[in-house]
Amino acid sequence: MTYLTPAGRLQAYIALLLGLVLFTTGTVGQSLPGDPETVEPLPRQVILIIGDGMDEQQITIARNYLKGASGRLLLDQMPLLSSSQVLAIDDQVDGKPVYVADSANTATSMATGEVTSRSRISTSAGSDQDIPTIVELAEAAGYRTGLVTTASVTDATPAAFAAHISFRLCESPEAMVNISYRDILLGDCSADLVANGGPGSISQQLAGSMLDVLLGGGSKHFAPNAEGADIAVVSLAQQNGFRLVTNAADLASAKPGQRLLGLFSKNTMPVRLQGEDGRSAEDPEPSLLNRAHPYLGDVTLPAPMGCEPNPEFDKVPSLRQMTDAALEHLSYDNPRGFFLMIESASIDKQSHRRNPCGSIGELAQLEEALASALAFAEAHPRTLVLVTADHSQAAQLVPYVSLYAAYPIPIYTPGKLARIITPEGSHMAINYATNNFMMEEHTGASVPLYSNEEGRGRVPTFVQQPQIFGIMREYLGI
Amino acid sequence: MTYLTPAGRLQAYIALLLGLVLFTTGTVGQSLPGDPETVEPLPRQVILIIGDGMDEQQITIARNYLKGASGRLLLDQMPLLSSSQVLAIDDQVDGKPVYVADSANTATSMATGEVTSRSRISTSAGSDQDIPTIVELAEAAGYRTGLVTTASVTDATPAAFAAHISFRLCESPEAMVNISYRDILLGDCSADLVANGGPGSISQQLAGSMLDVLLGGGSKHFAPNAEGADIAVVSLAQQNGFRLVTNAADLASAKPGQRLLGLFSKNTMPVRLQGEDGRSAEDPEPSLLNRAHPYLGDVTLPAPMGCEPNPEFDKVPSLRQMTDAALEHLSYDNPRGFFLMIESASIDKQSHRRNPCGSIGELAQLEEALASALAFAEAHPRTLVLVTADHSQAAQLVPYVSLYAAYPIPIYTPGKLARIITPEGSHMAINYATNNFMMEEHTGASVPLYSNEEGRGRVPTFVQQPQIFGIMREYLGI
Repeated sequence: MTYLTPAGRLQAYIALLLGLVLFTTGTVGQSLPGDPETVEPLPRQVILIIGDGMDEQQITIARNYLKGASGRLLLDQMPLLSSSQVLAIDDQVDGKPVYVADSANTATSMATGEVTSRSRISTSAGSDQDIPTIVELAEAAGYRTGLVTTASVTDATPAAFAAHISFRLCESPEAMVNISYRDILLGDCSADLVANGGPGSISQQLAGSMLDVLLGGGSKHFAPNAEGADIAVVSLAQQNGFRLVTNAADLASAKPGQRLLGLFSKNTMPVRLQGEDGRSAEDPEPSLLNRAHPYLGDVTLPAPMGCEPNPEFDKVPSLRQMTDAALEHLSYDNPRGFFLMIESASIDKQSHRRNPCGSIGELAQLEEALASALAFAEAHPRTLVLVTADHSQAAQLVPYVSLYAAYPIPIYTPGKLARIITPEGSHMAINYATNNFMMEEHTGASVPLYSNEEGRGRVPTFVQQPQIFGIMREYLGI
Repeated sequence: MTYLTPAGRLQAYIALLLGLVLFTTGTVGQSLPGDPETVEPLPRQVILIIGDGMDEQQITIARNYLKGASGRLLLDQMPLLSSSQVLAIDDQVDGKPVYVADSANTATSMATGEVTSRSRISTSAGSDQDIPTIVELAEAAGYRTGLVTTASVTDATPAAFAAHISFRLCESPEAMVNISYRDILLGDCSADLVANGGPGSISQQLAGSMLDVLLGGGSKHFAPNAEGADIAVVSLAQQNGFRLVTNAADLASAKPGQRLLGLFSKNTMPVRLQGEDGRSAEDPEPSLLNRAHPYLGDVTLPAPMGCEPNPEFDKVPSLRQMTDAALEHLSYDNPRGFFLMIESASIDKQSHRRNPCGSIGELAQLEEALASALAFAEAHPRTLVLVTADHSQAAQLVPYVSLYAAYPIPIYTPGKLARIITPEGSHMAINYATNNFMMEEHTGASVPLYSNEEGRGRVPTFVQQPQIFGIMREYLGI
């Protein structure tokens, strides 16, 4: 061993001490834009995992089913927890606050650091200007980039990281003008047409992007001919250097070294779990007498049910398989590092459709993707793992036996109710009662933001959702 | 200055280094029961602030109104955030999980570290055994203790910290046997009668307690004669050394040095805010055509409203005034320290009654109490301040303009709706749709737990609610 003089030892201790202080205050590695000297050695990675609609109700419902009332999710074992304030505004320059957001404007918040209006994909409220995204900034700085989702890759959350358009449903060249559902006009992206000097539809923008990995559903949005070209959007992507894979086997065997476009289903990918016999939440059925007076008669509640595997699920790769492939491709022979966004999209979509089992299964998928991300971070220092939701959702965990059950009148929830038999042998009641439409509304509560140890000193306990962009950008030193 | 040799300096640096390591790992001051050598110098204080029903929806609703969509509450500025897993079981030994709790069993969790069944006050599920509380343990170790609430002091949350009874509504000697509402039997505490060898009603137990400070509402529960005595419960309390105060002026002028019982209203104390003209959330009114078919006709939604001061509020001391008095009395000439629980009770109660303005005002009251607690902690090192909720509640922040507003059909919430005009000039919609009864249900989501810096290294990011008891106990070294 090397012998140190007392003075030398003193210096060594001071160095150790300084290291500890810097470590514990999180100063090391906090690089500021324009201050490249403070950036640590590369590679650096940011893995942002988004549970769409994954609020505290959804997390607790899933925890109760997957781990038991006293159990712990992997989420619960993350070392750092913050609260993320979800913001949205009217579609005007300096628009007024809107207290309930959607996935388009919230993904824009995280991807760009800017607050915009609902349905917008990384464009500004009122003025419709494109806003640079973390993916574009990372690419410009030499990082690889990837987007993984269980939705269509053209859906709002992934789209906001790599595309710019005024209306989220403009997902393909065929859905750019007068987008309608049963003759009801929902929106229009004429200004974004290539013919009008715009970037074209979301799928066309993704096909022409610099992304290294893009995995999910939504092949139908890549089937039409690209605007202003006589080849399909998917062919445009292949011309642009993407290797196309369409099933789990091809995904698993795809060698790293080539950019990867995975389109595993026409639309949103099939979810893992469904209600028994495909059942959703259902209406309580009051008796005629109860319809006449709320204190009389009785009510038939939906029969309790378990969750069961969705037979369609096995036909596509799981979120974990997509995550593992993305991590392999993004990290292969990569001295610079990468940005990867992973979305479990159908926590939200299944909640819109009042399928608690569906949401539970997709939260389980998020947990598996998180396990892969944490294992990667363990093996690759300087990997910041963030997990959050974009907005809150409709499902409410309500009492299976009313707090007022002693009263001999029928007490039941308005809206729709599911009664779930949990693996630990209890019963869990979940209601959906934000509206009377075929799809539930989002809700407005702040959402959790979890970080691995790399977030210490970097992720405050309370953040505005757009700050997540700044945290990721600073971490990458861009 | 003292001159140190290089070797002496080395030792000094090692000591400093060790101190830092211990400090940053939170080891200093973490005392274990039976290991008194690790307890720091006294006094030590724990201030536990409970926002009853204060879940993420309630917090966001209040933040939007009080501070604006982009604003920050004092809660949001707390340095540490955790998630608290709320637990309840059936009323049986080793009962099965119940996924939605009430204030009785959750306060029992925090006061005793034990999971029990709904409606129980620090007694065990199934076996009805008394469970020692943090207040009793603190008193036995020489700490002063205080409970402050905007509810009756006999209500479930304060009661669970200093009383033991099988059913939460046994609040006075007159409400011990066959407790009924309009001939509906709700519960019974015959086994807890003094005549049967029990401790008597909650008010009688509190009157005979060793508490140093007990402030709130509920004087009506102290008016009846004590069981087995010919004096009123309140007189029993005075015989036991409590000074009685009944209004803000008396509270303010009460000199420290005497135990203090403040009873400022007959029942729950009046809340700060109410809806315009006393309005609550109301039913949307669909047209006849819409009642015939959900896609037809239209709907009249409740008119938007602001919040206004409740004229009754000025007749009682605020939660801040009670908190300040409690802190003064508990800390006066006290070399040992204290435990203080402060509850803003009507965040929950106003949510049960579908009054969003009421809940908002009570969250503002909690914020003020927190400001006092933090100022006290600033002036008195070794003060652990924890803020949490006991369980989630019914209110949901829903879109003011539906996500599906493009569809030309009436979309509206089942249940009751309030539309609030916020001070920043936007509109916030809140629905209550957990049931069709006169009072809403609780919900089951995990709740936030905030700590001041004293919690670092002591309060994990994820706790089971009963762990809060252990954290407080260890902090006090008891």
